[in-house]
Order: sequence, then C-alpha cells, then structure tokens
Amino acid sequence: MAQARRKNSETKPRPPELRLPAGMRDHAPAAAAARLKVIETLIRAFQEAGFERVLTPAFEYEEVLALGLGAAARAATVRFVEPSSGQVVALRPDITPQIARLIATRYRDVKGPVRLCYEGTVVRLDRAARGQRELSQAGVELAGLAGPEGDAEVIALGVEALTAAGLSRVTVDLGHLGLARDLLRDMDLPPAAQDQVRRFMAKRDRQGLENLLEGLKVFPAVKKCALEMLQLSGPPSILKDARQRLPKGAHRAIAELVDIAAAVSKRRLEADLHVDLGEVRGFDYYTGVRFQAFVRGAPDAVLRGGRYDDLLGRYGRPSPAVGFAIDVEAVAVALDAASTKTNQGGI
Amino acid sequence: MAQARRKNSETKPRPPELRLPAGMRDHAPAAAAARLKVIETLIRAFQEAGFERVLTPAFEYEEVLALGLGAAARAATVRFVEPSSGQVVALRPDITPQIARLIATRYRDVKGPVRLCYEGTVVRLDRAARGQRELSQAGVELAGLAGPEGDAEVIALGVEALTAAGLSRVTVDLGHLGLARDLLRDMDLPPAAQDQVRRFMAKRDRQGLENLLEGLKVFPAVKKCALEMLQLSGPPSILKDARQRLPKGAHRAIAELVDIAAAVSKRRLEADLHVDLGEVRGFDYYTGVRFQAFVRGAPDAVLRGGRYDDLLGRYGRPSPAVGFAIDVEAVAVALDAASTKTNQGGI
Repeated sequence: MAQARRKNSETKPRPPELRLPAGMRDHAPAAAAARLKVIETLIRAFQEAGFERVLTPAFEYEEVLALGLGAAARAATVRFVEPSSGQVVALRPDITPQIARLIATRYRDVKGPVRLCYEGTVVRLDRAARGQRELSQAGVELAGLAGPEGDAEVIALGVEALTAAGLSRVTVDLGHLGLARDLLRDMDLPPAAQDQVRRFMAKRDRQGLENLLEGLKVFPAVKKCALEMLQLSGPPSILKDARQRLPKGAHRAIAELVDIAAAVSKRRLEADLHVDLGEVRGFDYYTGVRFQAFVRGAPDAVLRGGRYDDLLGRYGRPSPAVGFAIDVEAVAVALDAASTKTNQGGI
Repeated sequence: MAQARRKNSETKPRPPELRLPAGMRDHAPAAAAARLKVIETLIRAFQEAGFERVLTPAFEYEEVLALGLGAAARAATVRFVEPSSGQVVALRPDITPQIARLIATRYRDVKGPVRLCYEGTVVRLDRAARGQRELSQAGVELAGLAGPEGDAEVIALGVEALTAAGLSRVTVDLGHLGLARDLLRDMDLPPAAQDQVRRFMAKRDRQGLENLLEGLKVFPAVKKCALEMLQLSGPPSILKDARQRLPKGAHRAIAELVDIAAAVSKRRLEADLHVDLGEVRGFDYYTGVRFQAFVRGAPDAVLRGGRYDDLLGRYGRPSPAVGFAIDVEAVAVALDAASTKTNQGGI
C-alpha cells in the first residue's frame, strides 16, 4: 500500500505554481475588452488621419533593432540567442526602430511623406521591479516632413486620438532637445561632464547645476543660458520671454516651439499646452521637439513622442521623422478611473 | 586626407544588413490590412457565438507552459533565461495552455461551461527551415462540456468562422485519438514499439505496419483492428462500416464521431466532412476527437483542433475541454489565391 502510494506520487508530480514572470499578465474578458476598445479607437483615429497600419515581428536581430534605440531602450532590451543561428536576437522594446527599418527598406524609393501606424506589444526590462514589463503600444510615425508642420500634425493627432478614446483635458508637455544639444556643444565638455550637466538639468537642480558649471569653468554666458533654461517652464506665452533671455543660438528652437504651439492651438483641441525648455530626457534619441501627454488618473505620461531626424539615416535612408507611442494600459486605467469617479458622482 | 577618411569610416560604420531572423516578417499596409480583417472577422464570429476574448502574455515560465503542451510543441518551443530571475521562460508556441491556465486559476470556481477566444502571435522553432516561425493564431476553447455536444459546437463554429472570413467549401477531417489510444493499450507494447506503430500509422504504411506487428507478436485481433483502421477513411457513411469491422472497444469513439457528424451536418454548413480513423497525429495531446479544416489555396490545414480532456487537470482544475486554432496567415493566403483566381476568370 505504501509502495502503491509512493508510485502514485511519483507518476503524478504536483503541478508547479501557476505564476507568471514579473510584468507579464493575463487580461480576463472585461479587462481585455477595455484594452481592445482603446486600441481599436486609437487605430481608427490614426487611419482616418491617413496613417496606414503595418505589422512587425516580435523579435529581430539585436544589432538591427539597436540601431534605432536610445541608450535607455538598449539597456532595457531583453535578448536571447536565436537557437538556429547562434546570433543574438532581441524582443522589441519599442516599435519605432522597426517602422524606421520598414521605411528604409520597403519605402526606400517613395517620394514625399510616409505615414504609418501600428499596435503591438513590446517588452522592457524593468530593473527596479526585478523583472520586465509587457506593454501594448499604439503609435504613429510620420517620415519625410521636417519641422513644425510635421510636429504639429503628429501632436494634434495624438491629442485627437486620446480624446476619441474618451479622455478629456489632455495636457501636452513640449520640450526641444535641440536647445540642450546646442547648449552642451557650446559648453565643449568631455562626455562625463556632459552627463553630469544633463543629470542636474533633468533633476531641475538649479543650485547643483550652478555649482557644477562653476567648477567646470564654463563661459559665463553659457552658464547663464543653462540656468535660465531650467526656469523656462509654463504656458506657451513663456516662449516670448525665452526669446529675450536665451542667446540667439536658441532662437530657432524657440521659433519652432512657437509655430508648433500656434498650429496645435489653431485646431481648438481639448488640450492644455505646457512648455518646458529645461527638458533633457531622451537626449540620445530625439533631435528636435519632444512631447508627452498627461491625463487625470494616470500618474505617468500616456503618450510619448518627438522628432528624431537622424533615425532613418541610421537605417540608410536619411529623412526627417516624428512620431509617438501611446501606452494602451495607461489609457485603459485612466478611463477606468474616470468612469469610477463619474459613477460615484465625485469630482 | 587618408587619415581623415579612415577616421570617417571609423565613426560611421556601415549599417548592418537589415535582414530579419528566419520566419519573422513585416507586413506592409495592404498585407497587414488583409490579415487584420481576417482576425476581426474570426473574432466577431467567435464572440457572436458567446466566446469571450481574453489576452495572455507573449512568454511565461517554461515549466508552466510545458504542462499544457504535447511533445511536438515542447520540442518547438523557443526558450531563454529571464534576466532578473535566472529562470527559463518560453515564448508561447501555442495559446491553448495559457487559456487552460487562465481557466484553472481565474475560473476555478465557475460552474458550467466556460467559452473563451483569443488572437495572438505564437513562435515555433522550425528545424527544417533552420529558424522559427511567428504565426498569428485566432482560436477558441470550450471547457466544461464533454463529448459530442461540445465537439460539434466547436467544429461548427470553426466552419462558420472560416466561411465568414470569405472561404468557401471547407473540408473538415475528423479523427479520434481515443481509438489509437485503446488500440495501443490493447497491444501492450513497450514505449519504443508504440512509437514505431504510431509512425507507420501516421505514414499510412499498411505493409510496414503489418510486418512490424508480425514481429512484435501482437494478438491477431488487435493487429487486424490496426490494419482496418488505416483503411477506414472517407465520408461519414464509412462509420457504419467501421462499426462492423472494428471490435466492440472502438464503438464508443465511433458513436461519438457519428453524433458529431450528424450534429455538424444538421447545421447545413458549407462544409464537407471526411472521417479518418487511422489518424494518430497529436496522440500525446488530444484525448478524443481531432479535427482539421482544409480549403482550396492552402496546402496545409487552416484550422486545427480537438478534444483534450486531461489538459485542465494538469493545471489543477480537471474539466473536459475542446478547442481549435486558426492560422491567420494561411487563411489570408487562401483568400488571396481565391480572389486572384476570380479576377482572372479562372476555374
């Protein structure tokens, strides 16, 4: 009897704990339906604006994908060895490089702007959470249209799509990486010192930055400019002020932001614009405007994008480009929070 | 000058060849739209029939996923080490085990049938092609309904969904793994010999099987039954014949197939049924009926499914279950072939 029991427990091992890796999750029908509806609405808004939907694979060769990633996204990439070839492949942490590759190959000979959109899941290492996150992203890329015209088209589409999804009162943060780029060029510092400057600026640490620049013996005019930039944050009207307080080299970027703000405002979207000239995040990726959209009920940005005019060149087809990605989960959570509030008759 | 040139080639290395891993592909707008339309139509058909859509993650712990995979799918699984935990994770080669896990956890206390559907990409090693394939699959799982009633519901839904997608004249192949299971049990052979028997049956090699069974000293009645099964292939009317030619132990499986064929026929679907009692593929996975749907323009089955009554038990919630997955790419290719023919005024 004891033997029979032992035999039984040998042939039927206890099933493993049915847990998922960190950051991976199932969506039961109600949650799945909410997310799929968000995706459907966003994609419809993109398509109505002339952006054609494409599909790209879940993983590809790391060296090809990495061409189109900034340092942060590269560090967050999940890699493994392709069994058949021994080459390193990577789960896409971002779909933008794939669209850039697609435009550089299949659209190589297309003249004029290319407008594409996508939806798909990306995987990113999340070292703080000791795991990774699988995110559903819906986004657009507009290639071949330089400057504020393309920027405004894409930013306005982002707001329209979020509004179509049911979110109200979107706040769009606008920055411009060209400003930080010029500033750092004028400082003429070794890379490690540049990183320090960017870190203090990202933290909005005015005193720390001042002390640092003092020690680095940066020209007084450049130092003044850096400290001014940190304070230039507010409604688009601050751009007039910025024109007076920042040196001539900054005027082109400021003029672009003025044009973008005017073009977006003209469309009478349900959005508040907020300008932040001290924005330096995404420095290694974006070349011009950088924008993020925030809504009530979502602690982080629900949309992130910007202009990356050197991205397509890295894939062998130089072209200006601007785009954004919307975090579907964040939108679904914000909509859920909004509907809960409404149902409670709250604020 | 030579130095300047060298420096230039050092700072701007040639971009890597922009190729994708074997079996990974992009879909440009027209191809993407065709595939997305197939997915949308299939999912709508599933939902109208009461199957609720769920979302599951792209990878999970291998030991959890492998619980619900047959030997072939396990061998075709792409694995890698989760960076944060050092544990082995696997890209899903099949979504069915994920749905089984979901039902075993979130639906643990639900009484009565559970009807779920899904769409997503799976990745499978393809050793013949020295790479892998990323496939888009749309499918359903019906848990909690045993026997022909559940089988017929699911098979009919598969045909309806394929018809809704625009395919005509679907041929459904019906087999029953219970027959092969009983047969092999009666042969009472060591595992290696069982594998040999299954291989000869899968190849429909009557002479080879006869010689093999001769050498294995299988009872004459069992041997006769195996050889008969290989010949019992044709319209559902052969089931009458099968009842006379196969021993009593096979009658329950035959009766199930009779019931399924009758229930499917009653729905007046645009489908031809074909019964094949020698079917042994999927032996390690299916427990009852096994079915595949074929259409003109697709060399392989566009839909594969069957009954796996011990699958949910492996996840700790025993329940009968039946389901299928449709290969979205195969459907899109078949539709494309059909429309090309129509446009050419061909056959």
